Amino acid sequence: MPIPPEAFILDRSAAIPLQLQLRRQIIGAVIAGRFRPGEKLPSIRALAGHLGVARVTVAQAFAELVATDYLTSRDRSGHYISEGIELGPEAGPPAPQAARFDWGQRLDGRFAQAQRRDRVRDWRRFRFPFVYGQADPELVDHAAWRDCAVRALGRREFASLTGDLYGEDDPELIDYIARHILTRRGIRARPEGILLTLGAQNALWLISQVLLGPGRRCAIEDPCYPGLREILAHSGAAVHPVAVDAQGLPPDAIPAGVSAVFTTASHQCPTNTTMPLPRRRALLARALQDGFALIEDDYEFELSFAGATSPALKAIDQSGAVIYVGSFSKSVFPGLRLGYVVADPGFVAEARALRGLSLRHPPGHMQRTLAHFLSLGHHDAQMKRMRRGYGERRAVMLEAIGQEGLDLARDGATGGSSFWLASPVPARALAQTLRARDVLIEPGWPFFADPARGDGFFRLAYSSISAARIPEGIRRIATAIREARA
Amino acid sequence: MPIPPEAFILDRSAAIPLQLQLRRQIIGAVIAGRFRPGEKLPSIRALAGHLGVARVTVAQAFAELVATDYLTSRDRSGHYISEGIELGPEAGPPAPQAARFDWGQRLDGRFAQAQRRDRVRDWRRFRFPFVYGQADPELVDHAAWRDCAVRALGRREFASLTGDLYGEDDPELIDYIARHILTRRGIRARPEGILLTLGAQNALWLISQVLLGPGRRCAIEDPCYPGLREILAHSGAAVHPVAVDAQGLPPDAIPAGVSAVFTTASHQCPTNTTMPLPRRRALLARALQDGFALIEDDYEFELSFAGATSPALKAIDQSGAVIYVGSFSKSVFPGLRLGYVVADPGFVAEARALRGLSLRHPPGHMQRTLAHFLSLGHHDAQMKRMRRGYGERRAVMLEAIGQEGLDLARDGATGGSSFWLASPVPARALAQTLRARDVLIEPGWPFFADPARGDGFFRLAYSSISAARIPEGIRRIATAIREARA
Repeated sequence: MPIPPEAFILDRSAAIPLQLQLRRQIIGAVIAGRFRPGEKLPSIRALAGHLGVARVTVAQAFAELVATDYLTSRDRSGHYISEGIELGPEAGPPAPQAARFDWGQRLDGRFAQAQRRDRVRDWRRFRFPFVYGQADPELVDHAAWRDCAVRALGRREFASLTGDLYGEDDPELIDYIARHILTRRGIRARPEGILLTLGAQNALWLISQVLLGPGRRCAIEDPCYPGLREILAHSGAAVHPVAVDAQGLPPDAIPAGVSAVFTTASHQCPTNTTMPLPRRRALLARALQDGFALIEDDYEFELSFAGATSPALKAIDQSGAVIYVGSFSKSVFPGLRLGYVVADPGFVAEARALRGLSLRHPPGHMQRTLAHFLSLGHHDAQMKRMRRGYGERRAVMLEAIGQEGLDLARDGATGGSSFWLASPVPARALAQTLRARDVLIEPGWPFFADPARGDGFFRLAYSSISAARIPEGIRRIATAIREARA
Repeated sequence: MPIPPEAFILDRSAAIPLQLQLRRQIIGAVIAGRFRPGEKLPSIRALAGHLGVARVTVAQAFAELVATDYLTSRDRSGHYISEGIELGPEAGPPAPQAARFDWGQRLDGRFAQAQRRDRVRDWRRFRFPFVYGQADPELVDHAAWRDCAVRALGRREFASLTGDLYGEDDPELIDYIARHILTRRGIRARPEGILLTLGAQNALWLISQVLLGPGRRCAIEDPCYPGLREILAHSGAAVHPVAVDAQGLPPDAIPAGVSAVFTTASHQCPTNTTMPLPRRRALLARALQDGFALIEDDYEFELSFAGATSPALKAIDQSGAVIYVGSFSKSVFPGLRLGYVVADPGFVAEARALRGLSLRHPPGHMQRTLAHFLSLGHHDAQMKRMRRGYGERRAVMLEAIGQEGLDLARDGATGGSSFWLASPVPARALAQTLRARDVLIEPGWPFFADPARGDGFFRLAYSSISAARIPEGIRRIATAIREARA
């Protein structure tokens, strides 16, 4: 008995093309067993008429399904669900009386507990999203990335796209990072001193697993990047937060006996201060003297507005104590999930082995696409565009912040994509209030070892909000603060 | 003083287009400081003449570099290196007398030691590569993947391509896996019971980190997937290898007090045996009785040749004790780096949190591309093609193995992409000999808890060698064995 045209429905409001919808619907019905092998489909004419689409749309959908063996076409008599298709065994739902495995007593929830709960996944729906670290369609050169990705999909690149690279990285990408990206930070590195990672998060995770563990001690900046504190909480090592001042991490405040110190010297997260050269030298001297590894997270160095960025710690380190962490999440886009570690080859070999154990390697296609994006100059062009765009927004932010009398917690920020503000009212409650008014801000608590201290601060990022909306957004924040104080 | 045409050289033998070579050369020279801001380039006519290329080639390269701000074009007087370009600070090489940080005493090499040293990275150069787990251009639908990737690069998909997804997975992909892939294995799962991973390797790593640790015990099959043993060696847990028989893992041989048992029930790795239904039920009963989690690595289930594949353990498990691991490395290609875990939502939440800590999420673009590849039926078509291709090669393998009198260690393998053979001579030495004769085989030692036992076996995979070359390859193996015995 033939399948009636009424069995088909298309959703014209959906973003998915109608031809594609039709194909998915047929494949889905076959696998679900609603359409059975041998059943005849409506004629192209009848189905097109019922759906109100061009015949060619239905014809193309059928042709594609014949090509993929879902349908069989018999001359003159039309299209049929193929006989050959194997359908999955239907597993009944678990019998209610079946004994259940007790997961509760086997999971201590230590990982889930560490997760931040304050992230707003649907931030795009807000009119004034002062959110940090998301991509902005206005600034990302989507077309250029697409061109590079298509190039990386070429026949010639089959191996880099499809192969299991074991522990290897894309040599073209490593070479480019070494010769073009790192030289701009004054860093000299050979390929065996560079490891690709799945973004900075993965880099910091690998570093903590290699260097730290039960019985070890490490120091971090306070406040600092929350993801780092989460990672270290699971390393088993004792973590010592060191309060930063106007020059960033004070070397003298680092406790004795630590084996690793994590810093964001060029651009402290989240306060945006830059560590002056003398303090950098003091920090390096301390590392060599105490024998601790110095992990430099050099995020957002590309976004400096104060002329030339100060050289990286890694650039002035002659001892090899510095492990440098770079990322393309800010300069290309976060969904790329590519970052890198530059360190002593012996350390890199260990981190590479751990990367291999835990995930093998970042997808080859993403690596090769990025290599093209860099080598064709698109990355540099995008950096320029971002600096221009962020610079403009930054000026608008500063003016609005001044007009509304908000309190910049730190002056002299060299750049980046956010401001760090002092909040005269509890920032967590403030964020809640503002969310109901279409405004997203980042309360300070996740950045601090003691969340209570963080309630006096909040971060305003301008990487995903257009300049035009900034003044009104700042106005709403100031109003909410005034109301909370009244 | 203008830059002379002689400053430019093109490599006509290189795979890189000449126009692209020219652009890279100019960008490289600018960043290296060889070309300085304000310097004038040769005229298009002069440079094209010197390089012996069409003027349009040079003109296009210049135009692209003007667009990306490397060059400035002044009417009538030609092209100049842009003034605006910031150049990286030049860091001198480390002073020889500088004190060096002592990495040796800080690295115990525990990860690097676990790495397999037997992998042949340049396997493509061998005429008879019986290597396992690499992509085959004959069987992978490169064009279809490319189409799906381009679709996933569309404007409409900007968010899925570029955004930081935090802990989330692509809903379209998860939905497809749940409704189409898992139903074929008889598995019912809701989205909260599914977690995307960077391939099966990453899935097994996450599982071991969540379930195991110092003080815990687990059991694995012997022989088993070497990557799993490497992962467990770093979990801190005690690992008990259980020898498999002709029916796979014997439940009665599992020691008491283990909290996790890893199995490849449908298709034992590397022996290719399939666990019969009665033993599966016995294994599940044992899991519930002893309270251990049962981790089912269901690799290559798509490649069964013996009619319908037997249902997964997860499909007949009503207790929820089974953690199911699937991967697209074999059915799409390994470079994709995408796999998944299906388990109790409580467990998935923990594993998701750990994934977030260690790498955030697999790149959104790869997720969305795969979603298209699956939903458009390309994955099913490729499976068909692979089954056909592997089936053909398998027949050729069986005939050649019979003719040459090689010894199949296991009969009745239901499929897959390899054979497991008994070696009458030390397999490790045999592999060395054959490598010099353009033949790659996998010696058995990495699969065994006791490498010495493994020297009596080797694996022959046919996933990356064409049917035409198989007979000669097998002949060479048989010859080498005869010579070694003589």
